[in-house]
Amino acid sequence: MNIRAVLYVLGWILNIEGAFMLMPFFVSLVYGEPQGKAFLIVALICIIVGTLIVIKKPKNMVFYEKEGFVTVAFSWIMLSIFGAVPFVLNGDIPKFTDALFETVSGFSTTGASILTDVEALSQCSLFWRSFTNWIGGMGVLVFLLAIMPITKGGSPIHLMRAESPGPSVERLLPKVRNTALILYVMYIVLTVLEFILLVIGRMPVFDAICASFSTAGTGGFAVKNASFAEYSPYIQWVVAIFMMLFGVNFSVYFLLYLRKFTKAIKFEEMRYYFLIIALATFVIFLNIFKSYNGVEETLRHSFFQVSSIITTTGFATTDFNLWPAFSKTVLVTIMFVGACAGSTGGGMKVSRIVTLIKTIKKELIIYVHPGTVRKIKSEGKAVNHEVQRAINVFFVVYILIFVTSVLIVSFENKDLETTFTSVAATLNNIGPGLSEVGPTGNFSSFSVLSKYVLMFNMLAGRLELYPMLVILSLGMWKTTVSSGIKKLKACKR
Amino acid sequence: MNIRAVLYVLGWILNIEGAFMLMPFFVSLVYGEPQGKAFLIVALICIIVGTLIVIKKPKNMVFYEKEGFVTVAFSWIMLSIFGAVPFVLNGDIPKFTDALFETVSGFSTTGASILTDVEALSQCSLFWRSFTNWIGGMGVLVFLLAIMPITKGGSPIHLMRAESPGPSVERLLPKVRNTALILYVMYIVLTVLEFILLVIGRMPVFDAICASFSTAGTGGFAVKNASFAEYSPYIQWVVAIFMMLFGVNFSVYFLLYLRKFTKAIKFEEMRYYFLIIALATFVIFLNIFKSYNGVEETLRHSFFQVSSIITTTGFATTDFNLWPAFSKTVLVTIMFVGACAGSTGGGMKVSRIVTLIKTIKKELIIYVHPGTVRKIKSEGKAVNHEVQRAINVFFVVYILIFVTSVLIVSFENKDLETTFTSVAATLNNIGPGLSEVGPTGNFSSFSVLSKYVLMFNMLAGRLELYPMLVILSLGMWKTTVSSGIKKLKACKR
Repeated sequence: MNIRAVLYVLGWILNIEGAFMLMPFFVSLVYGEPQGKAFLIVALICIIVGTLIVIKKPKNMVFYEKEGFVTVAFSWIMLSIFGAVPFVLNGDIPKFTDALFETVSGFSTTGASILTDVEALSQCSLFWRSFTNWIGGMGVLVFLLAIMPITKGGSPIHLMRAESPGPSVERLLPKVRNTALILYVMYIVLTVLEFILLVIGRMPVFDAICASFSTAGTGGFAVKNASFAEYSPYIQWVVAIFMMLFGVNFSVYFLLYLRKFTKAIKFEEMRYYFLIIALATFVIFLNIFKSYNGVEETLRHSFFQVSSIITTTGFATTDFNLWPAFSKTVLVTIMFVGACAGSTGGGMKVSRIVTLIKTIKKELIIYVHPGTVRKIKSEGKAVNHEVQRAINVFFVVYILIFVTSVLIVSFENKDLETTFTSVAATLNNIGPGLSEVGPTGNFSSFSVLSKYVLMFNMLAGRLELYPMLVILSLGMWKTTVSSGIKKLKACKR
Repeated sequence: MNIRAVLYVLGWILNIEGAFMLMPFFVSLVYGEPQGKAFLIVALICIIVGTLIVIKKPKNMVFYEKEGFVTVAFSWIMLSIFGAVPFVLNGDIPKFTDALFETVSGFSTTGASILTDVEALSQCSLFWRSFTNWIGGMGVLVFLLAIMPITKGGSPIHLMRAESPGPSVERLLPKVRNTALILYVMYIVLTVLEFILLVIGRMPVFDAICASFSTAGTGGFAVKNASFAEYSPYIQWVVAIFMMLFGVNFSVYFLLYLRKFTKAIKFEEMRYYFLIIALATFVIFLNIFKSYNGVEETLRHSFFQVSSIITTTGFATTDFNLWPAFSKTVLVTIMFVGACAGSTGGGMKVSRIVTLIKTIKKELIIYVHPGTVRKIKSEGKAVNHEVQRAINVFFVVYILIFVTSVLIVSFENKDLETTFTSVAATLNNIGPGLSEVGPTGNFSSFSVLSKYVLMFNMLAGRLELYPMLVILSLGMWKTTVSSGIKKLKACKR
């Protein structure tokens, strides 16, 4: 384990967080808020500590899979801890556990909140909340890779792979740095586009900035207690469409940028993704038609909620907790499906589900017609056995984390619907669940233990399980610590 | 597809069902009940139709995997349909859908009931209900294989494999017929043993017979409305222990019979199974201690319910629907775990879960220490990749059937807990779920559509998914029908 290289990257992550944290400070200057000072103080601390760490670059910057996972896991934990401090310092969220929950929820783009009154927060804190959604969406390591050649001569793909969602990371361009750069450029362009369309719809500029950030990261932090219920139908439609767009595999946008339109349209995962959205919207539309006024309103609420849940954003325009059981079950199902791989959305990802179903189809055909040789294809290419097995294992680990978490959270003695969906909503990075944690509820009543379990779920969901599991895995931990100590001793001699 | 061979076996199955159905007729003679005639009539019909089919034995009795699946699936559907008719004829369950639900539930050893008042049934009908549990437990094809050399020169292992629970069937003896025979002998011995112990505890003989049948098959049909709540603590302890014993892999009993005691004690799956039972009982014991009087009562209720749910029997001594959320979650979790492979219990089976966890451990170790070669072992032998993959696929199919069923059943607009656990309780062959379908509730309020979906789940759960999926799979169906028609035409020429 190359601990020095890991530390070096962590130092840079801290510098970036410091720089990002200056933005809410500027917001506080605009609104003349005293709460902004907290952001300035923590930003300076991040930058000072970060700079001290990165002064000397280690010679060996080679990253293997293990280093990738460990770096990513620690980066996100560190980001969350430092990101939570300003909330405590400026009194907006006095308890540290709650502040950490809110920040983990922000960076992991979950959008689950312990706040009972969002509107009571200062503007700078609201801005930081939404901004964590945006940073977490594309990932801070991807940002780092985009702006500097961090692992010169090394293998940065492992860093990117550990942070990016989906079963396999496609390099859009031969160089990882350029891939990271183009991803961020597309991300910024789409965010700005949404912002412009929202401002055209007469949304207040501050609200439009925060909404764009949270939509882009598919995070779901809203600046109003009623989420998006009070905004105009135009604004609701824009947000619903953009949530859907941020759930598309970014490779599609890259293909569009390259003017490979046919290839983009034929992108298999995107087609299934749109199909699922259309189907879910349609059946919910039929199921809830009686409760709303007219086709447009029903369609808008159906589409908004489906788009919000499948992309794991978590915005709401209506209290879907009051919908009939069938619609609620459809929502819970697409909670688990999630968005496309290579998007900012969470969940299990459409491509994984599609591959799983193809695997089963193959197995059944082999049972019925033994001797048949079938290859599973995804995007026209054969899926190799390693990827298939990794997907199966992912699925199982997913269920195991889910069950363990539900067991621990059930100590709260809340109803099973709350227990079950609070875990589902955090592990899938959605935010709201059903019953007590429904769109009008929040996570404030959970115990400290449950909050930490749910925080683990949020990070595990965002980083796709492995990084968090790897640092939990004790065997490796021991080797790391002991080899770390050995190396330190060797250095001192 | 060897359709003639499949038909021939189905004919024998019908004969056996006819013979079995004479038993409730004899019961009706003892109690002087007019309802018994219905059993006699249907029994005679079964035997006449069956005999007509088996008059001419086809020359080619070779069974491949496909024939195995198809035979098993059709056998069980046929068994259930004929088994349901007497209930309708004698008026005990007037509606056919309800009678079929009850019979499918019986044969699949689920124990879910649509009856609101069990005690209103005639004794012969009650006997038949419990007897279906017993027949379904070890399987009717295994019985057929035990009593006659049905596939002389063929390969009966495929028949046995398709009906027996677990990821792989162990031949206890080189010959399939002897294996089937020894399984049934052990099954009968254990059933008789329980009966004797229950009668010693002053349980009425009729109740003791029915209870032994339902325990042996891990079915869960009780003859009292209050299930086992009204019986003495002694009887509750005996039943709880026997439920647990019938959930043990029968290979263990065979090892005991061979006096290989050390090998029996070291049986890995059994150890995990006992460990899970002990753990679950212990944590529930702590969680519900306040609600009962003293250690014995609390321990008895904890152990009875855990033993009943993990073996997927479904008996109850107390309304666990009123337990705290944590205990209920533990029960729901072990619902999915299920008993050992090669036992009469349902669920996913302990060995599958253990193999899954080992696979994940292996994957994580490979991630952390790349280049390591690890083999997954079960019962000391390496699990080959095919079995590993089949288990993964099983897991995924399981989830897919589960989700699809929940979606359909959610049209009932019942609460999510009822919807969710009604599917879980039928797919895992348990019987009672929570909320409306809890131990004091029943399935009578479901629509006809939901009842058929739940029946499919019960059969899919008992036959471990594949046979039911294979007959659902349209591609194969077409080939079967068309090749069947071709063959029939060829015969006629």
